[in-house]
Amino acid sequence: MTIKILFSANNENWKRYKAPLQDALDNKSLDYELGRTITPCEVDYIIYAPSSSLQDFSPYAKLKAVLNLWAGVEGVTNNKTLKVPLARMVDSGLTDGMVEWVTGHTLRHHLGIDKHIHGQDGIWRSYVPPLAKDRIVTILGLGTLGTACGIALKRLGFNVRGWSRREKRVDGIICFYGDDQVDSSLMDADIVVLLLPDTPLTQNILNQHTLNLLKRGAFVLNPGRGPLIDDDALLAALDSGQIEHATLDVFRIEPLPQNHQYWSNNKVTVIPHKASETRPKTASQVIAMNIERAENGQELLYLVDRENGY
Amino acid sequence: MTIKILFSANNENWKRYKAPLQDALDNKSLDYELGRTITPCEVDYIIYAPSSSLQDFSPYAKLKAVLNLWAGVEGVTNNKTLKVPLARMVDSGLTDGMVEWVTGHTLRHHLGIDKHIHGQDGIWRSYVPPLAKDRIVTILGLGTLGTACGIALKRLGFNVRGWSRREKRVDGIICFYGDDQVDSSLMDADIVVLLLPDTPLTQNILNQHTLNLLKRGAFVLNPGRGPLIDDDALLAALDSGQIEHATLDVFRIEPLPQNHQYWSNNKVTVIPHKASETRPKTASQVIAMNIERAENGQELLYLVDRENGY
Repeated sequence: MTIKILFSANNENWKRYKAPLQDALDNKSLDYELGRTITPCEVDYIIYAPSSSLQDFSPYAKLKAVLNLWAGVEGVTNNKTLKVPLARMVDSGLTDGMVEWVTGHTLRHHLGIDKHIHGQDGIWRSYVPPLAKDRIVTILGLGTLGTACGIALKRLGFNVRGWSRREKRVDGIICFYGDDQVDSSLMDADIVVLLLPDTPLTQNILNQHTLNLLKRGAFVLNPGRGPLIDDDALLAALDSGQIEHATLDVFRIEPLPQNHQYWSNNKVTVIPHKASETRPKTASQVIAMNIERAENGQELLYLVDRENGY
Repeated sequence: MTIKILFSANNENWKRYKAPLQDALDNKSLDYELGRTITPCEVDYIIYAPSSSLQDFSPYAKLKAVLNLWAGVEGVTNNKTLKVPLARMVDSGLTDGMVEWVTGHTLRHHLGIDKHIHGQDGIWRSYVPPLAKDRIVTILGLGTLGTACGIALKRLGFNVRGWSRREKRVDGIICFYGDDQVDSSLMDADIVVLLLPDTPLTQNILNQHTLNLLKRGAFVLNPGRGPLIDDDALLAALDSGQIEHATLDVFRIEPLPQNHQYWSNNKVTVIPHKASETRPKTASQVIAMNIERAENGQELLYLVDRENGY
């Protein structure tokens, strides 16, 4: 019987994903129909952007699973009408792009590249940065993205620490876990990278108390989620010099309003949620693989634990 | 008999190197005297900065070897009064720093970080860079530094090509060699990194012809030596848009004169010869090791082939 797959995301995404999804599904030899308008009670799978207009899953009586298009699932985990398994997106293209972004901005701040970019005034200055082995980078979040970033930074010589809610071990990274060890993971760090999901337990994890644990003049990178940072505390820490610079890719409200202080603060680099992006080709392969698994009665890859919210 | 070691470099270097050199020599259990004023005919070894006032080696009748403090030896290879072996500096601190610098600036240009730094105007732009695997980086020079940088960039996913005068093989890097293959190594490259020594054969290797082989809008990184670039050709290529940006750490005249066009061209980032620096602790260990080898009748490590100039 034909598997009916509803694509529930905006026009722009449909244009980018239609062909790669068809290619990936064709490669699995599935008998399927992929579309944007399918009678709800006939739909088997939904490929889903949490921002789409579909918010009530009740009419989808036959639904077997929801396959999130993005890594972040905070817009759907609390949806009470969703009764079937939900998979996050773990896309190798997204991971590669995130490693490049985090490594690039870590090295940018480590090397003081901004000083050179802003210092083209004819003065021959002599600033040599320390080596990476003399810097501590703490990554909050050791999921697929945080772990991949940590490994890349370790290979470049940085002292890498990681923190996760549940205990994890990663070769070469000093791993901390649980609420008790957040402070130890941040103590005296030069650079902190936020790669946690947005859950009630992670919100404001970077606050006045934790910002003060970092080395004076530390750098903050947030390619994770906006609510991980207490914005007022960060602005105060930038003002006092405790934090030298923050490079932020995500915000509580996106697009970040034009009159927000982050735009005008010269110690902040605002990046319009582009740290990394799910890439249609590799993401479509993940979705096709998960539909094939579900049809074969196997558990979905990257299944969301909705109680923990990720 | 006491080994007499002359330190021939300026005051600032003496302050930085005296203690680390003593530590390293003490660890080798050598009976030595290290100083800045030793009767020439008694000197066994000279630790040497080519910019120092010592330019005539003739009075050093007992001299066994000259140990260059820096990686670059172009200031001494042509000195006809030098009749004894000369060793370049190959310092793990220098190599690590260079890998960090080259990786950082490659990612900076790859990710378009400057656009974000200069674009803090409240406009939510949507530019997502390609992935590293869609970029070609060509490294001219596969010595210790070029090879280490190539390996680091390959690990991040870049397509890495290398060119060297003599044939070399490096896992994961497409290697070109000899005059005939310079053009092939540069064809359609997105980013070119110069890490060659300054010799009559390498001067102006980046010129009007070779710049035009790169992909339109390519980036140039020069942490090698100033004379590798035909400056007029580079300025013309920046002007035409063939090259989007050049980040230059070395120049024909240093410090770069304040009125030089590079300072005022907003497509050029001038960095005051700080891409990487020999680090006293690790460099002193290399020097002590070489003195020990010479005393034991072994060949020096990093011996310069003065005919080839490196």
